[in-house]
Amino acid sequence: MDFRITEEQELMVQAIEEAMTRENLEPYFQDCDKNHTHPEKWWEILKELGCFSMFLPEEAEGEDGEPGGGEGAVTMFLVMEALGRCGAPIYLFWDHVKADALLENGTKEQIDKFMPLFFKGNGAFAQGFSEPTAGTELSSNTILTTYTRRNGKVYINGHKHFISGAQDNDYCLTLAKNSENPEQLTLWFVPTNVPGCKKEPMEKMGLNMENVNDIWFDDVEIEESDMFSFEGNGLMATSKGFDYERLIDAFNAYGQALCAYEDACRYANQRIVKGQEIGRLQLIQNHIMEMTMKIEAMRNMLLHYAWNKDNNCLTRAEASIAKQFCSESANDIADHALQVMGGIGYCGSRVSRIYRDLRITRISGGTGEIQTVIASRQVLKKYK
Amino acid sequence: MDFRITEEQELMVQAIEEAMTRENLEPYFQDCDKNHTHPEKWWEILKELGCFSMFLPEEAEGEDGEPGGGEGAVTMFLVMEALGRCGAPIYLFWDHVKADALLENGTKEQIDKFMPLFFKGNGAFAQGFSEPTAGTELSSNTILTTYTRRNGKVYINGHKHFISGAQDNDYCLTLAKNSENPEQLTLWFVPTNVPGCKKEPMEKMGLNMENVNDIWFDDVEIEESDMFSFEGNGLMATSKGFDYERLIDAFNAYGQALCAYEDACRYANQRIVKGQEIGRLQLIQNHIMEMTMKIEAMRNMLLHYAWNKDNNCLTRAEASIAKQFCSESANDIADHALQVMGGIGYCGSRVSRIYRDLRITRISGGTGEIQTVIASRQVLKKYK
Amino acid sequence: MDFRITEEQELMVQAIEEAMTRENLEPYFQDCDKNHTHPEKWWEILKELGCFSMFLPEEAEGEDGEPGGGEGAVTMFLVMEALGRCGAPIYLFWDHVKADALLENGTKEQIDKFMPLFFKGNGAFAQGFSEPTAGTELSSNTILTTYTRRNGKVYINGHKHFISGAQDNDYCLTLAKNSENPEQLTLWFVPTNVPGCKKEPMEKMGLNMENVNDIWFDDVEIEESDMFSFEGNGLMATSKGFDYERLIDAFNAYGQALCAYEDACRYANQRIVKGQEIGRLQLIQNHIMEMTMKIEAMRNMLLHYAWNKDNNCLTRAEASIAKQFCSESANDIADHALQVMGGIGYCGSRVSRIYRDLRITRISGGTGEIQTVIASRQVLKKYK
Amino acid sequence: MDFRITEEQELMVQAIEEAMTRENLEPYFQDCDKNHTHPEKWWEILKELGCFSMFLPEEAEGEDGEPGGGEGAVTMFLVMEALGRCGAPIYLFWDHVKADALLENGTKEQIDKFMPLFFKGNGAFAQGFSEPTAGTELSSNTILTTYTRRNGKVYINGHKHFISGAQDNDYCLTLAKNSENPEQLTLWFVPTNVPGCKKEPMEKMGLNMENVNDIWFDDVEIEESDMFSFEGNGLMATSKGFDYERLIDAFNAYGQALCAYEDACRYANQRIVKGQEIGRLQLIQNHIMEMTMKIEAMRNMLLHYAWNKDNNCLTRAEASIAKQFCSESANDIADHALQVMGGIGYCGSRVSRIYRDLRITRISGGTGEIQTVIASRQVLKKYK
Repeated sequence: MDFRITEEQELMVQAIEEAMTRENLEPYFQDCDKNHTHPEKWWEILKELGCFSMFLPEEAEGEDGEPGGGEGAVTMFLVMEALGRCGAPIYLFWDHVKADALLENGTKEQIDKFMPLFFKGNGAFAQGFSEPTAGTELSSNTILTTYTRRNGKVYINGHKHFISGAQDNDYCLTLAKNSENPEQLTLWFVPTNVPGCKKEPMEKMGLNMENVNDIWFDDVEIEESDMFSFEGNGLMATSKGFDYERLIDAFNAYGQALCAYEDACRYANQRIVKGQEIGRLQLIQNHIMEMTMKIEAMRNMLLHYAWNKDNNCLTRAEASIAKQFCSESANDIADHALQVMGGIGYCGSRVSRIYRDLRITRISGGTGEIQTVIASRQVLKKYK
Repeated sequence: MDFRITEEQELMVQAIEEAMTRENLEPYFQDCDKNHTHPEKWWEILKELGCFSMFLPEEAEGEDGEPGGGEGAVTMFLVMEALGRCGAPIYLFWDHVKADALLENGTKEQIDKFMPLFFKGNGAFAQGFSEPTAGTELSSNTILTTYTRRNGKVYINGHKHFISGAQDNDYCLTLAKNSENPEQLTLWFVPTNVPGCKKEPMEKMGLNMENVNDIWFDDVEIEESDMFSFEGNGLMATSKGFDYERLIDAFNAYGQALCAYEDACRYANQRIVKGQEIGRLQLIQNHIMEMTMKIEAMRNMLLHYAWNKDNNCLTRAEASIAKQFCSESANDIADHALQVMGGIGYCGSRVSRIYRDLRITRISGGTGEIQTVIASRQVLKKYK
Repeated sequence: MDFRITEEQELMVQAIEEAMTRENLEPYFQDCDKNHTHPEKWWEILKELGCFSMFLPEEAEGEDGEPGGGEGAVTMFLVMEALGRCGAPIYLFWDHVKADALLENGTKEQIDKFMPLFFKGNGAFAQGFSEPTAGTELSSNTILTTYTRRNGKVYINGHKHFISGAQDNDYCLTLAKNSENPEQLTLWFVPTNVPGCKKEPMEKMGLNMENVNDIWFDDVEIEESDMFSFEGNGLMATSKGFDYERLIDAFNAYGQALCAYEDACRYANQRIVKGQEIGRLQLIQNHIMEMTMKIEAMRNMLLHYAWNKDNNCLTRAEASIAKQFCSESANDIADHALQVMGGIGYCGSRVSRIYRDLRITRISGGTGEIQTVIASRQVLKKYK
Repeated sequence: MDFRITEEQELMVQAIEEAMTRENLEPYFQDCDKNHTHPEKWWEILKELGCFSMFLPEEAEGEDGEPGGGEGAVTMFLVMEALGRCGAPIYLFWDHVKADALLENGTKEQIDKFMPLFFKGNGAFAQGFSEPTAGTELSSNTILTTYTRRNGKVYINGHKHFISGAQDNDYCLTLAKNSENPEQLTLWFVPTNVPGCKKEPMEKMGLNMENVNDIWFDDVEIEESDMFSFEGNGLMATSKGFDYERLIDAFNAYGQALCAYEDACRYANQRIVKGQEIGRLQLIQNHIMEMTMKIEAMRNMLLHYAWNKDNNCLTRAEASIAKQFCSESANDIADHALQVMGGIGYCGSRVSRIYRDLRITRISGGTGEIQTVIASRQVLKKYK
C-alpha cells in the first residue's frame, strides 16, 4: 500500500496552482457567470498547461500528429482538484472523455475530423440523447426523434432537450430511431448550424458558463456516412465510458466543493464577532467539522476508485457510489460553507455560485435515485 | 380546543386564491426575477385585496383617515400561505410590521408622514442597522456610522450594508453612534435620495425582486427632529417587534415552500417514466413523504404560535423555534421538490427560484446559529 | 381557533403528574425493565386514576354496569403526555383501543366476557396477526395458520410471531385461513393457556416490560361461537381502528421522547465542565435546539390530528404522517438526549431505556417504509 | 499510488475468516452478551491466531523471551475488519495499545511484570482516569482521587468511574493528585483485589461482554515504586498513544458496522414480501445505498490514515476526523441495518446487539463534540 503520488503529478498540480494564482481569474469567472459566457481566458490557460491533450488516449492523434498524453484517472482527479480549489468551472472540463468512444466506434473520417478538435479543447460535438419525454429512460418508447431514409439521404426530425454545449459546436451526436423500424436506435453526427436546426439555450439556476439547449431538427439532411457505430447500436456505442463519466462527475463535485470549503475556512478565521474570530464558536466549528469529514471521505474514496479505473477494476457499483456520495456530500459542503459566510456568502460570493452550480450534480449524469438503484442492485448481488 | 378558522378568514383566503389564479402571474414573476424588478402588478392586486391596510393597527390612520384593519398573526399566516402557494414573492410582504414601532415611538410628524405610505403598500423607509463590521453583533464596538452635531444640524457619516428595499424609499431609518459619545446608539430618519448618499444594490443568488443595498452616507445633513425615539435608544426602539418579525420570517419560509411542494406533487403525477407516473416509485414517494411531514409540522406549529401572538403569549423562544424550524424545513422541502422535478426543476422552474430565495431565510433576520443560542437558553431556564 | 384545553383535562393532567411524582416509580421501572416484568404498581395507579375506563366507549359496560368514559383522542394525548414525561412505559397503554372493534363486531357473549376486563386494565386478549412469513403483507399467501372444521368443532394450527402481551392473557384473537378454502381469512378467539398451545417470549433490545411472543397452535380446539365477526372478514373486522392506533403510536413516541428531552435539559443545567454548565456550550445548545424544535412540532401536529379524530375528520394520510413523523422525531430526540448525557446516559439512565424502547416505533404498527407508501399515495391523489 | 495489501496481510485475513467461520461463535456471543461474560472461547482463538503478540512492539518481550510482532495500523485495520465482519466484540481488542506507553515510561520491574500479560491477551491493568466529576476535563480541579505519603508508603483514596475491564485485572493504573500539592497529577499502579478497594460493574445499554466499573479506593497502600513515569506527569505519560487510540476506535466502529451491513444485505435478499425479495423495493435499496456509501467512505479513509500512522504522519486532526466520521457513520449504518431487518432486527438479532454496542463510540474516547472542537481548530490553523 502506498499513497504517494508521482513527481510528475506533483509538478502538474503545482503548475496548475501557480497559473491559476498568477492569473487571478475569480473576477473574470464572476463576469462570465453573470453574462453567461464561456471562460475563454481560462480555456487558454488549460491549453497552455496541456490539460486537453494530456488525457487523450495515446493512440489519438492531434492536428500535427502529436499523440495524446494517455494520463489516467488518478491524474485526472489531481488536475480537477487543483483547478476546482481555485474556483474554476471544472464542470466544463470533460470533453476528452468522448474521445475513447470516438476512437473505438468512429470511422477514419470521423476520427480525423473530430479528434484534433479535442486536442485544442474544442468540444467537437455535443451529445444529443435526452428529449422532453426521454430522460432517465432512453428507449424506442420515449425517443421520438427519427431518422428517415429518402433518396439516398437521411433526414433527422425531432426535439432534443438538455443538450450541453451545443452553442459552441457544429455537430450534435444525435440518438434517433428508424422511422421505418422504431426498435432501431442509432447515433448520427448531425450538423446544428444549418437552416433546419434551431438551438435555444435553456434557463438554469446555475452552470452559467455552460449552455444547455433545446434543439429542434426539422428534416435536417445528412449522409449514411454520418452514422456513428452501426445501425441499432445507438444506446451501446458510448456506454463503455459511462462508469468513468460518473467518476468524473464525482471529481467535479469534489473539486468545486473543495473551493467552497476552503473559502469558508478562511472566512471563519477572518470574520470577527464580539472580539473573536467566528471560527472559535462551536456552532461554526461544527460546520467546519462536517465539511472536513466529507472532504476527507470524498478524497480518499475517489483516489481509490481512480486507481481502480487505472487498473481496470473500477466496478459499476463504485462509479455510482462515487457519483452519489460525492454529489450529495459536495452539496452539503456548499450549504455549510454558505452558512458559515452568512450574508456575505449569499450576496455574490463564489461560494454562492458553487452552491448553484453543484445542485445539478445530483440530477445530471443519472439522478441520485438512479445511482441508488444501480449501485444497490450490484451490491445485493454480492450477498446472494 | 378548536382548529376552525373564521368565515372572514376563509373568504379572504378564497379572494386571494381567486385573484392570483385569475391573473396567472407566474410568467410575470419570472420576468421580474430575471430583470431584478419589483412586481408592481402583484403589488396592485395586494392593494385591491386590502392586504396592506388589513394588518395595520386600528389606531393607525391612512391618508383619508381610514383606520388600519387590526388583523392579527393568524390572519397574517393565512394570507401569506394563500399568496405563497401561488408562487408570489411573499418575502416582500412585511413592511406593515414597521408600523407598530412607528406608532409607538414616532413623533406626530413622523407618523403623519410615513403611516399613509404603509396604507398604500409603500415601504415608507428602509431600515439601516447592519454594517460590514456589524451583523450579528450590533453595538458601539461594531457600528461605525456616526452622527455629529454641528451648527444646530446633525450629520450622518458611514457605510450601511445589506439594507433591504432602499432603492424604493426616500428614507432610511439609520442606526448611528454619537461621535462625541460613542456609547449612544440612536436611530435617525435619513434621506437617501440626496447628493451625500450613495446606494448600490448588492449581488445576490436570489431574492431578485427585492433590492438589497450598500449605502454610503457622506455628511448627510438632517435635523434634530429626524431622531426616532430618544437618544441612546437606538437598539431598543424597534426591538419589541423582533419576535413577531421572526414569526413572519417563518410564515414566509412556509408559504414559499408550500408552492415548491405542490409543484413537485403535481409533477410527480404527470411525469411518466417506463409507462407510469414517477409518483409510483418509492424513491419519489420518499421525497413526497419527507416534504409532507414538514409541511404539516410547520403549519401546525405556526398556527399555534400565531394564536399565541394574537393572545399575547408568544414567547421569545417560540419565535426563534419557529424561525429556525421553518427556515430549515422550507429549505429541505425546496431541495426535495427540485430533486423530484430533476432537470426540469433546475432549468428555469419556479421551484428553482424558490430554492434560491429560501436560502436566505436561514441567514437573515438572525442566522440559524443565533436562533439556536437564543432559544436553547430560554428553554434551559425552564429546567433549572 | 382556540388552543385552550378544558378544565377537566387540566385537572386530569395534574392528577396524573401528582400521582406519578408522589410514587417516584423510576427505580421500580428500572427493576421491571431489568427483570422483564409487567409494572403492576404503575398499573394500579392507572386504575385508580380511572385511566382504563376513561377511554372506553360510553356504550361499553363494566362488571358492575358502569359505562365507559368516552374520552377522545385529545384527552388521550394529554394523558399519554403526562404519563410519558414521567418515564412511564406508555407503550403498554393502548388495550382500550381494541374495545371499539369488540363492541362493533363481537357477539353479546364475547362482549360480556371481555369488556369488563378492559375496564380493569386487563388486556383481555392478545391479537395474533403476524407470522414468520407474514409481516407487512397479510394475505392468504402469507398466512399459514389454518382453521379446520371437524366433527362440529374448529381446530387451529400454525405459528404466530411478534404477539404482544400474550403471556398475560388467556386468549389470542387469531387470524387463520380456512384449510378448505384458503381465500377465507377469519378471526377466532383462541385460548392460549391450553395444552395444544405453546407461547414463548422473544428476545428484544427493548420494551422489556412488555412480552412479545411466538405462539404455536397444535390442533387447538375451539367452537364456532369463538369466531369474531363473520367468516372471511378477518382482515377487515379490526381495520377501522388502524388510523387511531397509528395516532396512538405517535402519542407514545412523543410521550417517551418528552421524558428523554426533559432529562437531557435538566442534565445540561447540572453538569459542570471547566467551571460552567454544559448547557452554555454551543454544541450542547445545538442538541437542545434540535430536540426542542421536534418536541414542539410533534405536539402541535398531534393536538391538531387528535382534534380531527374527535371531530371525525382524521384522514388516513394524517395518521401515517403522525406515526412516521413522530417515530422518527422521537428517535432523534432520544439520540440527542443520550449524547447530551454522555457516559451517564449510556450507563443505566432512563434515557438509555427510552432509546432502546423507541427504536421499535419505526418498525411496529407498520414500518416507516409502509407509512411512506400509504401517506404519499393519499397526498398525490390530492394533486391529480 | 498502490492500494494492494501484502500477501502476509491477505493470509492473515483469510486465517481469521476461516477460524471465525469454523467456530461459528455467534450463538456463543449471544450467550456472553446475555450473561454479561467475557468471551473466553473467542479470546482463545485470537491467541492461537497470534492476534495479541502481533501488534506488540518488536522491542517488547513475552514470557519466553519472544518478541512482539511489530505489526502496524494497516494490519490492525485489516484484522479488526476481518473479526468485526464476523460479529466479534472487537471493542474488547485494544489492550496492546497500552504496551507502547508501558515500554516508554515503565520501570524494568513494571515492564517485566505486565508485558508478558499483553502477550497472553491479558489486559494486565485497567486504566483509571475518569471520575464522577472528571470526564471530558481531567485536571486538578476535577480529579478528586488523591495520593498521600505516610511513613514511607503511599495511600490512595477516591472514586473512579467508567473504568473498563477492571473486573478482569489485578491492577488499575490510577490518576491521582498529590494531597499535599494538588497541582501534581501522577499515575500509580494500584492493586484492586485488596480489602481497601471496591469495584462494581455499572449498568449499560450495551458492551455487555465488557465490564465498566466504579472503583472506590479507601486508603489503599502502595509503594513509591508503583509510580508510573515521574511525579506530575500523570496526564502526559500515556498521551502519545491518544491519536492511535482514536484511530482504533474508528476501526472498531467500522468493523462492527460492517457486520450489521452485511447481515442487512443478506436479509434483503432473503426476505420475501408480495412475491419478491425486499431488496427489490426502492425504499430498501435506499437503505442499502446509504450504508454502502458510508462503508466505502470509512474504509478508504481508514486505510489512508492507517498508512499515515505507519509512516509517522498521522495528524491529530486526522485521528479526530476518523473517530467522529466513523462513529457517526457506523451508528447510522446500524440504524439502517436494523430498519431493513424490521421486527427480526429488533428481536434478538446480532444487528440489535451491534446497534446497542456502537452507541458508545460517539461518547467514549472523547465525545463527538470534543472531536469536533479538536479537529476543527487544527483545520482552521491551516487556513490562517
